Amino acid sequence: MQSLYVIKIGGNIVDNQALLTDCLTAFSKIEGQAILVHGGGKLATSLATKLGVEQTMVEGRRITDAETLKIVTMVYAGYINKNIVAQLQSLNVNAMGLSGADANLIKAHKRTNANIDYGFVGDVDTINVELVQKLLSSNIKLVVAPITHDGNGQLLNTNADTIAQGIATGLAAQYNVHLIYGFEKEGVLLDVNDPSSLIKHINRPSYQKLKEDKVIFEGMLPKIDNAYLALDNGVKSVIIGRAEKMNELINGTTGTTITQS
Amino acid sequence: MQSLYVIKIGGNIVDNQALLTDCLTAFSKIEGQAILVHGGGKLATSLATKLGVEQTMVEGRRITDAETLKIVTMVYAGYINKNIVAQLQSLNVNAMGLSGADANLIKAHKRTNANIDYGFVGDVDTINVELVQKLLSSNIKLVVAPITHDGNGQLLNTNADTIAQGIATGLAAQYNVHLIYGFEKEGVLLDVNDPSSLIKHINRPSYQKLKEDKVIFEGMLPKIDNAYLALDNGVKSVIIGRAEKMNELINGTTGTTITQS
Repeated sequence: MQSLYVIKIGGNIVDNQALLTDCLTAFSKIEGQAILVHGGGKLATSLATKLGVEQTMVEGRRITDAETLKIVTMVYAGYINKNIVAQLQSLNVNAMGLSGADANLIKAHKRTNANIDYGFVGDVDTINVELVQKLLSSNIKLVVAPITHDGNGQLLNTNADTIAQGIATGLAAQYNVHLIYGFEKEGVLLDVNDPSSLIKHINRPSYQKLKEDKVIFEGMLPKIDNAYLALDNGVKSVIIGRAEKMNELINGTTGTTITQS
Repeated sequence: MQSLYVIKIGGNIVDNQALLTDCLTAFSKIEGQAILVHGGGKLATSLATKLGVEQTMVEGRRITDAETLKIVTMVYAGYINKNIVAQLQSLNVNAMGLSGADANLIKAHKRTNANIDYGFVGDVDTINVELVQKLLSSNIKLVVAPITHDGNGQLLNTNADTIAQGIATGLAAQYNVHLIYGFEKEGVLLDVNDPSSLIKHINRPSYQKLKEDKVIFEGMLPKIDNAYLALDNGVKSVIIGRAEKMNELINGTTGTTITQS
């Protein structure tokens, strides 16, 4: 089977043009199939502030009301997505930017929660595997914005980590999928302030211990839970590390590699 | 050869949800290949006003400075494009929204003009015909936003009429292309305030006469000039008329049909 790299970069990379350029340059050097999933960043928040659209955060998550959905659609699927695509094109990468609505790439449903109304937030139902295969086999590298749709005309704001995980598992039967989460740190750190405390390898037993010892900080837990969901569903490896060291992450010479055993 | 409908809808349609829905419903009933090119509308202007980004118009054209480019990229390639796609998906149309940067669909260059600096405005150089054919033959209907790129990482604001004409002529060797400009009027009118004064057919000699008599108003001239450019380059027919009557425009029972002779 062919290798496929599904790479997610977060808001901190998107917000920093120098880091983004380093990361996209690394992405441009990937041989073989690759999909880039990007997060949002601070631009949506700053645009909301300028427009006087109040942002409500509940348990670290943005509540997406109608005006906020408009803003994230503009920023994620418009500004960020198209600028990444244009930059990749200039690096001779045949990049195509899509949202989940485009050719029904990612169908989702509006999140229902008894206690919190998250607004127009989507939970992923299906990935259009056939479409992705067709585009990849046409030597197109996909750039995916974290906006999905429900099939009834409603766009939905959707977590980029979850999208990356969904795409990775959706294609695990067709490709040797390597799922890489690029962010602003070296990987999973024993001491969050010490880059040299990188944990190079996590398996099920060590993850359990790290959680019990409360070494892994809050924002990292869903990343690793998603990683195990991906591994359980056929993904070959999950690597978490510094986005601009994409080549080393791919080679396995930096970052935290997560495996079953 | 297969038929291909290249349909452009303007800002007045995009701004009006009821008209847009009628137009997309008509689009959804097209049998065979179709590409929708959409314009901008007032949302970009109102967003610019809210953000305090001053808009400069010279000879009816928007000067696109860096902040304005950001706004039109967000609004055209993000908000408008993805909402149209989601709505078409809900009508069972396998729509995919692209900007000119995506998979190098439309390469352009920054307009140079000795007298006016238009800013980040693009003039179309090439259409990626191979890509369009590949997507159409996968039963995907394209929705194109009027944002292009220069291949060096720069996005460019580009006239949607010109894009529609460029796509139509670019594919004239592969398809029987019918280019339709849907807007808020019945077609070319003898009296701009009287819908019943529709000119059903224009050919080269009658166009010359209408121009001499100054019957055709300013905004219509570039549309018809583009129409003749398209016909000169192999497009089978060009029809201008009311966007929500898309089915009748396709059937030729309404609107103005423009031909060579």
